[in-house]
Amino acid sequence: MDKEFATLDRWWRAANYLSVGQIYLMGNPLLRESLQEEHVKPRLLGHWGTTPGLNFLYAHLNRQIMARQQEMVFITGPGHGGPGLVASAYLEGTYSEVYPDISLDERGMRRLFTQFSFPGGIPSHVAPETPGSIHEGGELGYALSHAYGAAFDNPDLVVAAVVGDGEAETGPLATSWHGTKFVDPRRDGAVLPILHLNGYKIANPTVLARIDEDELTALMRGYGHTPYVVAGSDPGQMHADFAGTLAQALDDIADIQGEARASSGAVPRRPWPMIVLRSPKGWTGPKEVDGQRVEDYWRSHQVPFANARSDKKHRKVLEEWLRSYDPDSLFDKAGAPAEDIAALHPEGELRMSATAHANGGLLLKPLRMPDFREYAVTVDEPGTGAVESTRVMGGFLRDVMADNMHNFRLFSPDENSSNRLGDVMEVTPRTWNARIEEYDDHLAPDGRIMEILSEHTCQGWLEGYLLTGRHGLFSCYEAFIHLVDSMFNQHAKWLETTRRIEWRRPVASLNYLLTSHVWRQDHNGFSHQDPGFIDHVINKKANVVRVYLPPDANTLLSVTDHCLRSRHYVNVIVAGKQPALQYLSMEDAIIHCTKGIGIWDWASNDVDEGPDVVIGCAGDVPTMESLAAVELLREHLPDIRIRFVNVVDLMRLQPESEHPHGLSDADFDALFTKDRPVIFAYHGYPWLIHRLTYRRTNHDNIHVRGYKEEGTTTTPFDMTVLNHMDRYNLAMDVIDRVPRLAATSGVAREHFKNELIRHKQYVRTYGEDLPEIQNWQWSAVSGPKVVTEDAERNAPEA
Amino acid sequence: MDKEFATLDRWWRAANYLSVGQIYLMGNPLLRESLQEEHVKPRLLGHWGTTPGLNFLYAHLNRQIMARQQEMVFITGPGHGGPGLVASAYLEGTYSEVYPDISLDERGMRRLFTQFSFPGGIPSHVAPETPGSIHEGGELGYALSHAYGAAFDNPDLVVAAVVGDGEAETGPLATSWHGTKFVDPRRDGAVLPILHLNGYKIANPTVLARIDEDELTALMRGYGHTPYVVAGSDPGQMHADFAGTLAQALDDIADIQGEARASSGAVPRRPWPMIVLRSPKGWTGPKEVDGQRVEDYWRSHQVPFANARSDKKHRKVLEEWLRSYDPDSLFDKAGAPAEDIAALHPEGELRMSATAHANGGLLLKPLRMPDFREYAVTVDEPGTGAVESTRVMGGFLRDVMADNMHNFRLFSPDENSSNRLGDVMEVTPRTWNARIEEYDDHLAPDGRIMEILSEHTCQGWLEGYLLTGRHGLFSCYEAFIHLVDSMFNQHAKWLETTRRIEWRRPVASLNYLLTSHVWRQDHNGFSHQDPGFIDHVINKKANVVRVYLPPDANTLLSVTDHCLRSRHYVNVIVAGKQPALQYLSMEDAIIHCTKGIGIWDWASNDVDEGPDVVIGCAGDVPTMESLAAVELLREHLPDIRIRFVNVVDLMRLQPESEHPHGLSDADFDALFTKDRPVIFAYHGYPWLIHRLTYRRTNHDNIHVRGYKEEGTTTTPFDMTVLNHMDRYNLAMDVIDRVPRLAATSGVAREHFKNELIRHKQYVRTYGEDLPEIQNWQWSAVSGPKVVTEDAERNAPEA
Repeated sequence: MDKEFATLDRWWRAANYLSVGQIYLMGNPLLRESLQEEHVKPRLLGHWGTTPGLNFLYAHLNRQIMARQQEMVFITGPGHGGPGLVASAYLEGTYSEVYPDISLDERGMRRLFTQFSFPGGIPSHVAPETPGSIHEGGELGYALSHAYGAAFDNPDLVVAAVVGDGEAETGPLATSWHGTKFVDPRRDGAVLPILHLNGYKIANPTVLARIDEDELTALMRGYGHTPYVVAGSDPGQMHADFAGTLAQALDDIADIQGEARASSGAVPRRPWPMIVLRSPKGWTGPKEVDGQRVEDYWRSHQVPFANARSDKKHRKVLEEWLRSYDPDSLFDKAGAPAEDIAALHPEGELRMSATAHANGGLLLKPLRMPDFREYAVTVDEPGTGAVESTRVMGGFLRDVMADNMHNFRLFSPDENSSNRLGDVMEVTPRTWNARIEEYDDHLAPDGRIMEILSEHTCQGWLEGYLLTGRHGLFSCYEAFIHLVDSMFNQHAKWLETTRRIEWRRPVASLNYLLTSHVWRQDHNGFSHQDPGFIDHVINKKANVVRVYLPPDANTLLSVTDHCLRSRHYVNVIVAGKQPALQYLSMEDAIIHCTKGIGIWDWASNDVDEGPDVVIGCAGDVPTMESLAAVELLREHLPDIRIRFVNVVDLMRLQPESEHPHGLSDADFDALFTKDRPVIFAYHGYPWLIHRLTYRRTNHDNIHVRGYKEEGTTTTPFDMTVLNHMDRYNLAMDVIDRVPRLAATSGVAREHFKNELIRHKQYVRTYGEDLPEIQNWQWSAVSGPKVVTEDAERNAPEA
Repeated sequence: MDKEFATLDRWWRAANYLSVGQIYLMGNPLLRESLQEEHVKPRLLGHWGTTPGLNFLYAHLNRQIMARQQEMVFITGPGHGGPGLVASAYLEGTYSEVYPDISLDERGMRRLFTQFSFPGGIPSHVAPETPGSIHEGGELGYALSHAYGAAFDNPDLVVAAVVGDGEAETGPLATSWHGTKFVDPRRDGAVLPILHLNGYKIANPTVLARIDEDELTALMRGYGHTPYVVAGSDPGQMHADFAGTLAQALDDIADIQGEARASSGAVPRRPWPMIVLRSPKGWTGPKEVDGQRVEDYWRSHQVPFANARSDKKHRKVLEEWLRSYDPDSLFDKAGAPAEDIAALHPEGELRMSATAHANGGLLLKPLRMPDFREYAVTVDEPGTGAVESTRVMGGFLRDVMADNMHNFRLFSPDENSSNRLGDVMEVTPRTWNARIEEYDDHLAPDGRIMEILSEHTCQGWLEGYLLTGRHGLFSCYEAFIHLVDSMFNQHAKWLETTRRIEWRRPVASLNYLLTSHVWRQDHNGFSHQDPGFIDHVINKKANVVRVYLPPDANTLLSVTDHCLRSRHYVNVIVAGKQPALQYLSMEDAIIHCTKGIGIWDWASNDVDEGPDVVIGCAGDVPTMESLAAVELLREHLPDIRIRFVNVVDLMRLQPESEHPHGLSDADFDALFTKDRPVIFAYHGYPWLIHRLTYRRTNHDNIHVRGYKEEGTTTTPFDMTVLNHMDRYNLAMDVIDRVPRLAATSGVAREHFKNELIRHKQYVRTYGEDLPEIQNWQWSAVSGPKVVTEDAERNAPEA
């Protein structure tokens, strides 16, 4: 082996030794005695296959970091290779810094080994517990989108993103290569993808490892890259080859960035370097066990042989394997890494295991926030007007953007304008580094509105951006946010876990604006109708998820301000983009959003004797239909007493024991009574409201209307009729549940039924809703004008 | 224009005319008078941009179908172009055949126009209502995976799959190009991808339209294709160019298949042809409106101008646009297509709008089913043994496969062996058309186990395979099935809608085996723990979804047999792959699965006086822990009376009004009583059980334990402890809810608590569960031996 790489190779062998030790050992960590049964863990868990390659890459990246003093972040696509990243962080000293118990000596090494995949210890993957990680890698597909997210607005950073060849088969990964068209060599850092072809997944070869080299390199060139291939298994040759290639790739990056940064005008997009590393799966592990191929085969994917504790022959294989790294030469008497190894890493935060970029909360700067009150819509009378709420939000976001030009981005799958956030383009174009035609509008390499028709990529970019300490918002059609259900799961789990890790700092919340929602799919229909993301979200831990349904523009402004200031949550905001009624002045909106739920006095008339019925609602369309139902009822049944409750913060409905935002039972009872019927119009699937409220006193009287999977391309009002959430059905629901009115309500009920028939005939003839439905606005109706304070109103009943 | 294409061009213009008519008109369909306000729809909904290109492709494919008598299916990736596919089906006569009201005359044309995107009419997309479609296209990403699914085992079929350049940015689409490595030129049909670059999405240019031609063609070569590019906008030139290219592509396909089919040995994989069609978005539409660029720009995406009803100037643009196609020359006096146009389509089922492949139920042959009873596991005593249930299922599936070699496939993201279905490899290898090394096992181009590390691709292939009339099963890690949440949504909506379309025939059910489930992620941990797919599934219509949780191998066999025989459902089967206790003999398993829910007498002792408590469970791990809790309780509190209820068919818990499988209230009360505490151990998120049962009499007494998002890499039993679903917590839950025992149960409760402490100490020391936990099996315990019939047992209480 070339002398130049001798120490690097020793580091690599030490990392490999420490990796195997983590998977197998719980005693005798330095092999100071021969390996006995009790030294081997009873349950062998973890993944060896990808690990030696990761250790190899880490060592070589360190060499370049030291040579160039280059800030880098390491993204471990093959997150199963947890032992490798833990080993490298340990060798760099970072591990002992954040976990002092895992010291750089024999005792620490024993603990390092034992804790891995062990009850009360650490997970088997590159997890939140792993210093230097922003990427779990348990669910595959997001290495490159996370990497780009980290690189945006970090001009001095190079993100080395290892993509496993299994991961490379996933859809999200396959499209995320196109990040090359969205990264700006001037203002952003660079991503260096390293496609690690070790040939196998769990039990199969991988596609990219088994196509011809010219197909593979064509594919990479097609993605906008210059591919460099390093292939082999001989360590000496591989060190030399890879070192040269990596230096070349980093030179390329410096050259591309240098050219762009030296120029004042537009610079043509150039292919970015990427590296293909072909190395054997389970490299340096046993070649065969029990006569079966292991190294360079799928059998080395997990634990290459399972009976090392009880089976002497297997234990011998393990001991020989471990001794092949020559641990006595790698660690000193105390068990610390030998001096040359211990010295072979960058200093301080240049260590990839210690970079603040991988603990973004350390770098997080609060947004400079304009005063959202200044964007308020004037509401003279509640239930009037026709405002596109998200367009108002767009004005606010424009100024958030203007004040935070290197700290905030918007992400959307080609829906930013469709979702009415177009005003942001007044201060920044869309990001675009592919060809621009002279008739294009609002496109530029340094734009800050990120649009690619891939929800996965948007989500991955945003996660990477947030986890490295910045802020953002993802606007999406409601139905298709389900595309990232699983990514949301992983991010929520990351947030949940990092809350419990002392050295991790909170990051900005991941904010979703879900619009173009289920009730207003006028152009599309059934395929675009699904409000179930909320159901999905609230399966995750209550301490990381929040759901808001602001009914109008001013409440949306207030909620948006709150979400952008919040930390370490996933905030889901659902709000329509179509012209809609406005209800609350900014002052009232702030009060309402602060409480999250409340009685709307102007729509209620239940002061003296308590209500006959509570009408509850959450969401913009349900709020409108509920109000219209109130008006119908008060017009046709003048002595009915209705209390009107609107919910902005959905989690208020849950018991306080279940969610930090949950109302106490007393407060809930004060709003919804203990015994009166509640008719609740909800934006999404109705059973969610039951799920949230089933422990409440009055639950048996809660009757919920919502989306019940009836839909097609039709009019807005017809959609509510199809799902029985329209004003007439709500009014009839009330009539059916208020016995006091039974004697007098028959005529009204018949009238409401007939109105529905009239509606159906009209839409099927004219293709639009009845003019009085289209133009409906809330108007003062008979009944007492209510001016009580909420406090008085909320007093629990006897 | 070359004479050869004159009639084809007339067809194209007719299709374009009919498309614009659908978007805009509700009267005056043939423009026999000048266009008036009342002729234009009040709400203009739909998408023009992609439509003329689709019409162009359809016409040219028809030309080749006629010339070659080639069976073809058309997959419309840009499903927004609904008007185009409806227009083509109308010109082919198919539309009037399936919808006689939409006749080939003026009246029919008026109805054709009016119904589009109209209340009571048809959706704006290529929808289930569209003859010839198996692909909605509302949610983008699946055109190619659906196309491959259709092509598998259809050797005479060519599937023309149009991929929009917006869709091409999605992850699922980006990886689905790799279908080239999974299609067998001998036994399968071919997919001809047509990448339709019209340059824009909703409001942005597209990535693939704006990279250099050599990058684009490199990308396609990298995916395993020979790309042919046709670009332009002059119709005459485009007809000539595209016709030649299409003929070449089909010749290539014939050549590849011919070579493979003529050879008896292996044939090297060759690149398959694909076509890039660059044509303007909104081709043939208005070039500018109100001074703004429309044709060849994003503004033509939807309705190019919106005020055609009320604005005279816009109406004039519309009229000129419509007349530019010269409708008088295209349709006869009665409004039927002119003779030459009417004659220009293939006959009968060769029409792509009439092919049986796009109405798969017509072709569906039931599976030849081996007798699942023959695979039964012997169960001498309930609650004993150690069987990998899915491995038993694998034996059954092996023989299903052997008996249905051209009608059944298995799909998995590299988990078929991991999920213990490896026995199927005894009769067929994995599908693999990339390079095979001599040490590879069970790989071949004509293998029938489809494995790619892309849940999206597996799901898309399976959907395409089912919708064209075949059978299959998708086995997946439970947590990662969330990757296809949104695809499931679309498929469930497809099934739901097609149930209501008379001419559609039922297809085989989409069967999921979810294994490697939340409770047994020994190797992975938190990222792999999510049982929420069930929650997601049951948001869809009850008439298309089924969920089964068989607790052991024999119930799994029975459920699998049932699911494979069923039609037009999505069946979700959740079952573990780890060695586990067995409970029911095959005879008992059949009875239990047929009922879907039932009392297990051998675990109950509540005969005479009714139970103190009902212990319910669903799922294999919850069943084991519940039984262990019963044993603990009967050992420590000998006079406790417990009824044990196991649930296989989760939908039995719902009211019969909510789901066809729902138990009547009387039956539910008979099982769970009206007033006794119920402790329910559930496989997934506990609130789901509340959601299913909140209307039941005894709901307030139901206490559910399940996964509450606590997890890491730890032991199997520790996972249940972390989530309070272990035997000791369940036993304590019982004690806390049975007041009759209060006086005597304190000691037992303390003991259970101490056992949990002992467990925790042990796992943290030894890394594995206590031996008595690891080896626990159910044993006869004190208490009366129960032999009553269920009928007697189920009598409702007074």
